[in-house]
Amino acid sequence: MFERVAVVGLGLIGGSLLARLATDRSAVGFDSDAGTRALVRDAGFEVGPDLAGTVAGADLVVLAVPLPAIPGVLDELRTALPPTAVLTDVASVKGPVRAADPPGRYVGGHPMAGTEFSGFGAADPDLFARAAWVLCLDDGTDTAAWLDLAELVTGIGAAVVPATAEAHDQAVALVSGLPHLFAATLANAAAGSELALSLAAGSFRDGTRVAGTRPVLAAALCDWNRAALTEAMSDAIGDLIAIRDSLVSGRSTLAEFDRANAVLQLLDRAGTRFDLPRNDPDLRGRLLDLGAAGGRVLAVDADRLRCESP
Amino acid sequence: MFERVAVVGLGLIGGSLLARLATDRSAVGFDSDAGTRALVRDAGFEVGPDLAGTVAGADLVVLAVPLPAIPGVLDELRTALPPTAVLTDVASVKGPVRAADPPGRYVGGHPMAGTEFSGFGAADPDLFARAAWVLCLDDGTDTAAWLDLAELVTGIGAAVVPATAEAHDQAVALVSGLPHLFAATLANAAAGSELALSLAAGSFRDGTRVAGTRPVLAAALCDWNRAALTEAMSDAIGDLIAIRDSLVSGRSTLAEFDRANAVLQLLDRAGTRFDLPRNDPDLRGRLLDLGAAGGRVLAVDADRLRCESP
Repeated sequence: MFERVAVVGLGLIGGSLLARLATDRSAVGFDSDAGTRALVRDAGFEVGPDLAGTVAGADLVVLAVPLPAIPGVLDELRTALPPTAVLTDVASVKGPVRAADPPGRYVGGHPMAGTEFSGFGAADPDLFARAAWVLCLDDGTDTAAWLDLAELVTGIGAAVVPATAEAHDQAVALVSGLPHLFAATLANAAAGSELALSLAAGSFRDGTRVAGTRPVLAAALCDWNRAALTEAMSDAIGDLIAIRDSLVSGRSTLAEFDRANAVLQLLDRAGTRFDLPRNDPDLRGRLLDLGAAGGRVLAVDADRLRCESP
Repeated sequence: MFERVAVVGLGLIGGSLLARLATDRSAVGFDSDAGTRALVRDAGFEVGPDLAGTVAGADLVVLAVPLPAIPGVLDELRTALPPTAVLTDVASVKGPVRAADPPGRYVGGHPMAGTEFSGFGAADPDLFARAAWVLCLDDGTDTAAWLDLAELVTGIGAAVVPATAEAHDQAVALVSGLPHLFAATLANAAAGSELALSLAAGSFRDGTRVAGTRPVLAAALCDWNRAALTEAMSDAIGDLIAIRDSLVSGRSTLAEFDRANAVLQLLDRAGTRFDLPRNDPDLRGRLLDLGAAGGRVLAVDADRLRCESP
């Protein structure tokens, strides 16, 4: 298993990961920003001299730079990455990263652990506890690398959700892209009314909170997930038009709220535990079925994966 | 000032208000539900035998029943309400209550203090601390009654926002109706994907939280605010369509997030304090200007109102 991990990009996610991994293995970080490097070094962590020096000797490299920076860093890694190293990333959209043809034994990843805060100052080694962490299983994904990474991720308390990059991107369009755009639209709708802003309470604050994310990060997760997001938006816009027209016709919005209430009950259902033998002849297919059904891998043992499905 | 207050309807808002008012004056509550009455009595509060018996002898009656129950209770109050009593309510839409022609010296009110919880079990005497509380100033509103009520409301720690019923309803369409409908639409959009639900994290949970409100309450605040809400929805739908089309054309969503970020900075600005003499010849006009500008009344003294504008 991974004995030397390099984390490239030390914002909220990369910084939290470095802080957590450094507790029980050799871990080194790098950030293109000199101020961040100094901050991380002052916090007592090993920081590399440059990208190539940081990843040299690592058996796992975690790319935690913002989405727009990924293609450039991947290009640098084509020569710098140790040939047998596993490469993963934490970007919130997976298709474009995969399309950029990452070098090494690449496994796309995405921890669902963002907050509206960013930067190493907000880093927290416990950020990933009980978080869902997608690890992509696509054509060409190295299953051994995937399992090693799943062991590391579950070892720091997260639950691994297996999915293809495409299925991931469609799902996060619904639970991340759309919420960000709805939050921005809500905030902008109230912009013209000082009275409205002065009455902003729970529902408005909850509904707009994620619009407090750094705009460049919010825009990236939408812009990079263009195809899936425009489809999700069209469906949602259709729903809103139907509600508006129904209100205009004097009908009630109750059915919409009844449905939504039932959907929220589906979150955090107690799941069913079961084991998946590591030598299952169709392990990949079973894992993808598990993820598509809303299930997750809780632990990776020598002979089996401990799983939970809803 | 009010020496005997009757609170009709003992859910989250009414129950919290009864608990707060009972600490420093005579206060009695009533609820149409016998179980709630028993609960409130067991918690040590005075509970009336029926609606008429509860409001008899009160110089202030606070109507805190759900919106759909208001017309029926108003009809009962036409005979039961003491003729000089001030009547107020806490409904989240003000136009329809005013249109139902409330008896007595009526002042429409709306504390912006709801949560996704409901019922007396969630009541909290500190619920109103620092909350905005709209008190309506419309044609025919008794200014003396308004000032007495403003003194009571600021006395329990809330800040009074003066507004006409119409301006209130337009503002809450933006900061309450629209957030509720957006939350429901987001939840319903994810309903078909178990993978999406299993990845639901911060942005989805924040964005859908208020869809956990009791559906009948959420629907009422939308259905009763039909006119203002359909207008707000049409504008928001237009915005979403523009974003979708812009994404389709390959443009970035950054400008939308930049704007939204700037709007959120406007919340909780430090305000400017000033006094408004109680005998200002255009007190009503000045108060409405204050509310429209996002300001509030923090205290009502014998000779002046202590105000804050953003």
